[in-house]
Amino acid sequence: MKKVAIIMGSDSDLPVVEKAADVLKEYGVPFEVHVYSAHRTPEEARAFALGARANGFGAVICAAGMAAHLAGAFAANTTLPVIGIPIAGSRLDGMDALLSTVQMPTGLPVATVAINGAANAALLAIQMLAITDGALAEKLDEARDAGKAKVLEKDAAVCARFNG
Amino acid sequence: MKKVAIIMGSDSDLPVVEKAADVLKEYGVPFEVHVYSAHRTPEEARAFALGARANGFGAVICAAGMAAHLAGAFAANTTLPVIGIPIAGSRLDGMDALLSTVQMPTGLPVATVAINGAANAALLAIQMLAITDGALAEKLDEARDAGKAKVLEKDAAVCARFNG
Amino acid sequence: MKKVAIIMGSDSDLPVVEKAADVLKEYGVPFEVHVYSAHRTPEEARAFALGARANGFGAVICAAGMAAHLAGAFAANTTLPVIGIPIAGSRLDGMDALLSTVQMPTGLPVATVAINGAANAALLAIQMLAITDGALAEKLDEARDAGKAKVLEKDAAVCARFNG
Amino acid sequence: MKKVAIIMGSDSDLPVVEKAADVLKEYGVPFEVHVYSAHRTPEEARAFALGARANGFGAVICAAGMAAHLAGAFAANTTLPVIGIPIAGSRLDGMDALLSTVQMPTGLPVATVAINGAANAALLAIQMLAITDGALAEKLDEARDAGKAKVLEKDAAVCARFNG
Amino acid sequence: MKKVAIIMGSDSDLPVVEKAADVLKEYGVPFEVHVYSAHRTPEEARAFALGARANGFGAVICAAGMAAHLAGAFAANTTLPVIGIPIAGSRLDGMDALLSTVQMPTGLPVATVAINGAANAALLAIQMLAITDGALAEKLDEARDAGKAKVLEKDAAVCARFNG
Amino acid sequence: MKKVAIIMGSDSDLPVVEKAADVLKEYGVPFEVHVYSAHRTPEEARAFALGARANGFGAVICAAGMAAHLAGAFAANTTLPVIGIPIAGSRLDGMDALLSTVQMPTGLPVATVAINGAANAALLAIQMLAITDGALAEKLDEARDAGKAKVLEKDAAVCARFNG
Amino acid sequence: MKKVAIIMGSDSDLPVVEKAADVLKEYGVPFEVHVYSAHRTPEEARAFALGARANGFGAVICAAGMAAHLAGAFAANTTLPVIGIPIAGSRLDGMDALLSTVQMPTGLPVATVAINGAANAALLAIQMLAITDGALAEKLDEARDAGKAKVLEKDAAVCARFNG
Amino acid sequence: MKKVAIIMGSDSDLPVVEKAADVLKEYGVPFEVHVYSAHRTPEEARAFALGARANGFGAVICAAGMAAHLAGAFAANTTLPVIGIPIAGSRLDGMDALLSTVQMPTGLPVATVAINGAANAALLAIQMLAITDGALAEKLDEARDAGKAKVLEKDAAVCARFNG
Repeated sequence: MKKVAIIMGSDSDLPVVEKAADVLKEYGVPFEVHVYSAHRTPEEARAFALGARANGFGAVICAAGMAAHLAGAFAANTTLPVIGIPIAGSRLDGMDALLSTVQMPTGLPVATVAINGAANAALLAIQMLAITDGALAEKLDEARDAGKAKVLEKDAAVCARFNG
Repeated sequence: MKKVAIIMGSDSDLPVVEKAADVLKEYGVPFEVHVYSAHRTPEEARAFALGARANGFGAVICAAGMAAHLAGAFAANTTLPVIGIPIAGSRLDGMDALLSTVQMPTGLPVATVAINGAANAALLAIQMLAITDGALAEKLDEARDAGKAKVLEKDAAVCARFNG
Repeated sequence: MKKVAIIMGSDSDLPVVEKAADVLKEYGVPFEVHVYSAHRTPEEARAFALGARANGFGAVICAAGMAAHLAGAFAANTTLPVIGIPIAGSRLDGMDALLSTVQMPTGLPVATVAINGAANAALLAIQMLAITDGALAEKLDEARDAGKAKVLEKDAAVCARFNG
Repeated sequence: MKKVAIIMGSDSDLPVVEKAADVLKEYGVPFEVHVYSAHRTPEEARAFALGARANGFGAVICAAGMAAHLAGAFAANTTLPVIGIPIAGSRLDGMDALLSTVQMPTGLPVATVAINGAANAALLAIQMLAITDGALAEKLDEARDAGKAKVLEKDAAVCARFNG
Repeated sequence: MKKVAIIMGSDSDLPVVEKAADVLKEYGVPFEVHVYSAHRTPEEARAFALGARANGFGAVICAAGMAAHLAGAFAANTTLPVIGIPIAGSRLDGMDALLSTVQMPTGLPVATVAINGAANAALLAIQMLAITDGALAEKLDEARDAGKAKVLEKDAAVCARFNG
Repeated sequence: MKKVAIIMGSDSDLPVVEKAADVLKEYGVPFEVHVYSAHRTPEEARAFALGARANGFGAVICAAGMAAHLAGAFAANTTLPVIGIPIAGSRLDGMDALLSTVQMPTGLPVATVAINGAANAALLAIQMLAITDGALAEKLDEARDAGKAKVLEKDAAVCARFNG
Repeated sequence: MKKVAIIMGSDSDLPVVEKAADVLKEYGVPFEVHVYSAHRTPEEARAFALGARANGFGAVICAAGMAAHLAGAFAANTTLPVIGIPIAGSRLDGMDALLSTVQMPTGLPVATVAINGAANAALLAIQMLAITDGALAEKLDEARDAGKAKVLEKDAAVCARFNG
Repeated sequence: MKKVAIIMGSDSDLPVVEKAADVLKEYGVPFEVHVYSAHRTPEEARAFALGARANGFGAVICAAGMAAHLAGAFAANTTLPVIGIPIAGSRLDGMDALLSTVQMPTGLPVATVAINGAANAALLAIQMLAITDGALAEKLDEARDAGKAKVLEKDAAVCARFNG
């Protein structure tokens, strides 16, 4: 199976980004985690991005805050799908990171998820791999069913309390 | 090859969304275009989403403006990757559509691209299919090279004019 | 009397949404509370909405945060008035939920109240029922009088302190 | 049948607000249109609001731009449901009017629709009247069916063009 | 000397608004404080505004949060200058109150100060009274000198620490 | 009678600012118009502000766009009331000028009016002068009556058209 | 004298960026103009940045719109001062580019000017060179005097018209 | 070596601004710290700015919050490069200060850094001095290398934990 790369711009993003690793583990999807900064380690970031496809990666998740250029820097150096997580790491609560991640110019898409949406970034990567992997697709469907069951359980609890 | 679905919430979005079709055609990726509204035709939208994987689709592109629920409605009914294009169709220049598309709850990612970013939505879908399709990946790389050449050409023109 | 439905997208919204139930209880308006997610339980949400009028409901209150599609999903499946409460459940303090709730396309209104405005959502539902229910209208008028008296009481306290 | 009042803060809002009148006419719902300003004719606005229920109105639609206080001023003087249309009449494209209309304090809801959403304001008023008016409810359902048919027609046109 | 009225929409605003009273006391300007709500006590608010000039007031300060209509409601019923303090009493940190206060239509100005700017509202009222009151103007000038001295003192402290 | 100063940061603001002069003329209030830039002519701006009270001015209106510092620069050099008009002269439609004008620190209020609200700035200045000028106050009241009559006239026209 | 580099992300930015070249020409400061994209030509951009100091440049001006990463990409590869011009090239009027340019992480400053502020970017570069170049500093002072004279001229024209 | 001036509008900004002093100390660049307010001590601010170049300064850093006019006031009185730090000192989290600092009119650039970006302001000043100071430029390059090493160290730690 293709691997997923999880890159964060700073290890201070780890408490948020960790959830992406948790989800991938849960689905049995192999992954690697790295701290690369678009600005502080541009060469390492670039080298990783250039070699990502050849090294067995199928998708790259990039998490960064403020003027979040990390996903864009990866998108510039690979044609693998790049998923961007805007991190709420500034005074502007992630609105700066959201716009810096999603407003990419034509030719270089970044698949942007919600501010701090690390779990969804991992799920999106899994959905991409599952396009041609029926077993993985099934796991996604099962998780949906589980999610649905959980909501209905909560509905039952709320019903019991309010609807007598 | 898997097909890509392009869904728009209203045919008034066609002038923007058409660029997605153009890009897919250019790459030889089979696709279907539909007008389904999350609100006006919820059943048709749901039926399409539920059957999308079985019907040979690999990714779904959803374009909608204002309180843009279309991508979310598709994400709720398929575990295929859903790509959202926020359309600048209101007085708020697409900021409403951007937040309505990208701020999805955990479990239901929407891969959001820039406001009116239809070409990038198509490229993102192609990148997803190219994860396991070397020929398609090569075309993406070639397009990158062409894009690079075009910038350098423009640089040469600007240099000639300014740098004597 | 027609019933009011209170639907929340997640039971984490309960501390806010509970105030709507409190107000309805206070007015003696029958109601039901449910947890349905537009994305996790789309079919249950849809089934409830489709049957709401026949099942004796007069209005539906939907509370959701982030890319808040719940009210829109209900509006798509019933012609009962749907009242939307944008929940401040994200880093953007409810601005995302407000725009996702209020900016509905032509044909599918959502009666939107303030961010976290659960009490007002209930009052709005009661006002709707009171259009043809004189006794309920009287209760609303009495509550207004009480609200007015409370402000004047506070004015008296402030006057005593400052205007001596 | 109860009447609907359409109040606009300035006759410059007429081109937008007129659509509300069109919708009410289409549904055969009796209505009155007025120009009252919360600031320039506060007494007339107040008198109208105070007498609205007794004068046979079931709902009041208020349209105003900028620091849009009109809906709030009506809500302060009637317990009929008040529907607010934020008008995009300033340099801020209606964001000022939206916040001024929707962010009402507890006790005084304003059912807010999208910026310039006059047609939806009328539909919302009709939905309120239809709570206890089966014939009106049926008309709303028929309109939904028509809306759906129109989308499917457009889908067919788009399919013919793209999906050959 | 003319009096200054300080009106707040809710006594929960008192901790902020109190600073206005403090400043007026400091300058020996007579004032009255009231709790009047544009929405809950529209008649009392209106009556106060209508009589304000005759009752010896020279300026009215209105403090309100969210859809802050209080200053506008006063401006509608008096031609005395009305000063608006937007209160940060919602999830939107006062941006809603700022736009609701400042974006008044032509003919009805509200002299708006910063979010939670109660002290400045009082100073502005004093500046207005000081237009024709030389002694008051002198006090304002003295306060400026004191403010300047205080900054220079702090500069000295900082210089001592850093510029050694 | 005290004079009113109208200062604009650039003569490109004249088409907006001119309305302030028109209003003052209409009320027979003496005024002077100047182009002074807080940044390009800081000394002239400062000299004017420092001498304004002695030179017979009662209030200063400052209009500026972008990082609108003009009103603040005047407020720093006079204790006369300073009225700020944020001008919509940038890509941000005046939001930058609004925040730069209204968010003044404690001790230095700027009485801010709506974006491009030049007529209201003049009315506010007149209201200030009218605190101690009964004849001027009466003119303001008359204008209110005229404004009211104009709205009622428009109401009559709309009534004739819609309300049969 | 050190040269100034003007880099734009796309030649569609030329009409705005050209003003920077005009200003540099006016001051006799040598410069080079290039079209390099952080995303389409990352290697060329990086190579230019890495060699800029050695190649005689003293400052680099980068102009880009949307998710404007260009200035950051240069800042990552040179310790020369990098000046960022956010370009209003999207539906969000440059707010996306502004935040993407200015909100840089610690260690990698970008000297950001106003949206579309190309002339100021050039002036800022000249000010940097003038730190150690007295003749250039003198030219800047002369331009200031000229700017001042121009404002005073306009003031005279306005005075003649209004202050009679 | 030229000195750097660090000016803050209020000593409450010191905890943020101090980081600028720390960075300058670290690089051995001489500096002075002052508290000057554009509004409370306009003359002292102006005098400092006018004399800054003659007094051996090479760049001026100005930190201010809210309607942040300090950097602009300095830019108006010196042609040295002025660096602006928008301080998050209000309810608007520094967005007001950012726009008030960066949106300067043509002719008066302010080199704006991120909200609360004091360390970067100092680095930018050092970069300016390093244009003609090879030793300083070398120190900047060394710091970059150190920053890079630190990221790679953190990458190693993360790799050890996740990629085992």
